[in-house]
Amino acid sequence: MTSRAAIVAAAQRISSHVRHTPVIRIGAGDLGVAAPVALKLELLQHSGSFKPRGAFNRLLCAPAPAAGVIAASGGNHGAAVAYAARALGLRAEIFVPAAAPAAKVARIAGYGAELVRVGANFAEAYAAAQARRRETGALDIHPYDDPDVIAGQGTVGREFEADAPELTHVLVATGGGGLIGGMAAWYAGAAEIVSVEPERCPTLHAALQAGRPVPVAVGGMAADSLGATQVGGLMFEIAQRHVARAVLVSDDAIAGARRLLWERLRLLAEPGGATALAALLSGAFVPPPGARVGVLICGGNSNPSEMA
Amino acid sequence: MTSRAAIVAAAQRISSHVRHTPVIRIGAGDLGVAAPVALKLELLQHSGSFKPRGAFNRLLCAPAPAAGVIAASGGNHGAAVAYAARALGLRAEIFVPAAAPAAKVARIAGYGAELVRVGANFAEAYAAAQARRRETGALDIHPYDDPDVIAGQGTVGREFEADAPELTHVLVATGGGGLIGGMAAWYAGAAEIVSVEPERCPTLHAALQAGRPVPVAVGGMAADSLGATQVGGLMFEIAQRHVARAVLVSDDAIAGARRLLWERLRLLAEPGGATALAALLSGAFVPPPGARVGVLICGGNSNPSEMA
Repeated sequence: MTSRAAIVAAAQRISSHVRHTPVIRIGAGDLGVAAPVALKLELLQHSGSFKPRGAFNRLLCAPAPAAGVIAASGGNHGAAVAYAARALGLRAEIFVPAAAPAAKVARIAGYGAELVRVGANFAEAYAAAQARRRETGALDIHPYDDPDVIAGQGTVGREFEADAPELTHVLVATGGGGLIGGMAAWYAGAAEIVSVEPERCPTLHAALQAGRPVPVAVGGMAADSLGATQVGGLMFEIAQRHVARAVLVSDDAIAGARRLLWERLRLLAEPGGATALAALLSGAFVPPPGARVGVLICGGNSNPSEMA
Repeated sequence: MTSRAAIVAAAQRISSHVRHTPVIRIGAGDLGVAAPVALKLELLQHSGSFKPRGAFNRLLCAPAPAAGVIAASGGNHGAAVAYAARALGLRAEIFVPAAAPAAKVARIAGYGAELVRVGANFAEAYAAAQARRRETGALDIHPYDDPDVIAGQGTVGREFEADAPELTHVLVATGGGGLIGGMAAWYAGAAEIVSVEPERCPTLHAALQAGRPVPVAVGGMAADSLGATQVGGLMFEIAQRHVARAVLVSDDAIAGARRLLWERLRLLAEPGGATALAALLSGAFVPPPGARVGVLICGGNSNPSEMA
């Protein structure tokens, strides 16, 4: 299981390549929530999401891949791998589903990666990427079920705890689970980690109920970032020990959280990036008296005209 | 002249009403700039700009105004006064020029203020507001030429120095000059304060050349926030002592800085909010070797579809 030491090592490894993203404290009542809230603004990260942390850590742990790197992605992981590959002088080939959002596809191409749009969802794009990898011998960077990726994403937790040591609860959106897995491994009970998923992408929720990762049907407005059909095995082991609970939110609640972030803070989160906050605003998670709540805003790759 | 003690007192007075906005550090080279840069994200402030700091300080220094408050504004000051008045249970009447941007007008109305659209520019809206004030006896909150407003805006400098004590230079956009006046009064030479104005709103630039505030013609894309036709007398006294230099940037450079903030950081600054950064990106300000540069991103009230 991912250790705090592995996350400290990852942080040192990637520190010159990623941004230490800031935290803004919001007073009790400001967002209509009784507790004070600290938002970590990870949407300000390179490539517009937390994903470069894991991608850089994986790349810097592996021997330099002569045949370049390959990844399948709903979009954000692909953008991060493309960004990291360019920074390290490597070729990258990124497979995304046909319906990947334009903002993410543009990022991937903008970083100079070779883009392949294939399949109806992440699982199909992933299968196509694996077939291609067997031909080329490129280094595969899995978006979540990889120990180096999880340790890299865990550096979000390390920064958040350093900048907001008072937190009693930390809300994190879950897709395939690399991010919350890394953060739960970092906190390891020092704060309650609350998983938030869209009702239409209940991957960790279903896994915790079943006692093992199980495939679920996914859809809705945040599926491009949170639409893995099954959580990773590595994160699930961490989640069973260190994720306090897994709540679900509606697409309407996610849309409301996005709108509030824009109106009250001039932040443009993507649907998956606003999902953790939606739990707090909708009452899916109600802070107990005295709670100090941290919320991770984990991505911002969407079309700004959606907020006009 | 505004003292550091007045700014400390202002910070204590307004602390429960404004956000301590975060700083993000950007590595040398990241934005195509040789020096490391620290961005203070004041666009995350209530009402979308730094303006509530001065508005709250002025309101909390004055006796509670039975006839409410009145202000003229290009938009951001009006939104801030409307926000502060609502928070303190006061009526507000806000005068803006006919061409004030929709994003700012919507804010003012959204906070429950009475909105009056009048005149072709700030000066004409200001004259109309003064005439109305003489009828109603409301408390006037000047957008920049007021000691309590300047001390309130100076709290931006206090936070910036606390969070980024390494800075050697701080770039700030200048309109009427309340913000840079307060910040220069805070730093008082501890870092070089660099004024940045659009070429088409060269208000402080012209005043420093003339040796006194002089009226200038204003226009261009940032005129709604930086389009005061003359800097305030109070700020000018501070600027003569503590503003190291005043540079100008083109509207193209401002547009480029906005675009870069969106592409690289997923931040949506308004034109005036990106003006200080434009000086760094365009070479209007070139950091000397060893410089650590701070840049204030001071406002974000614009239409997001402009960045689509």
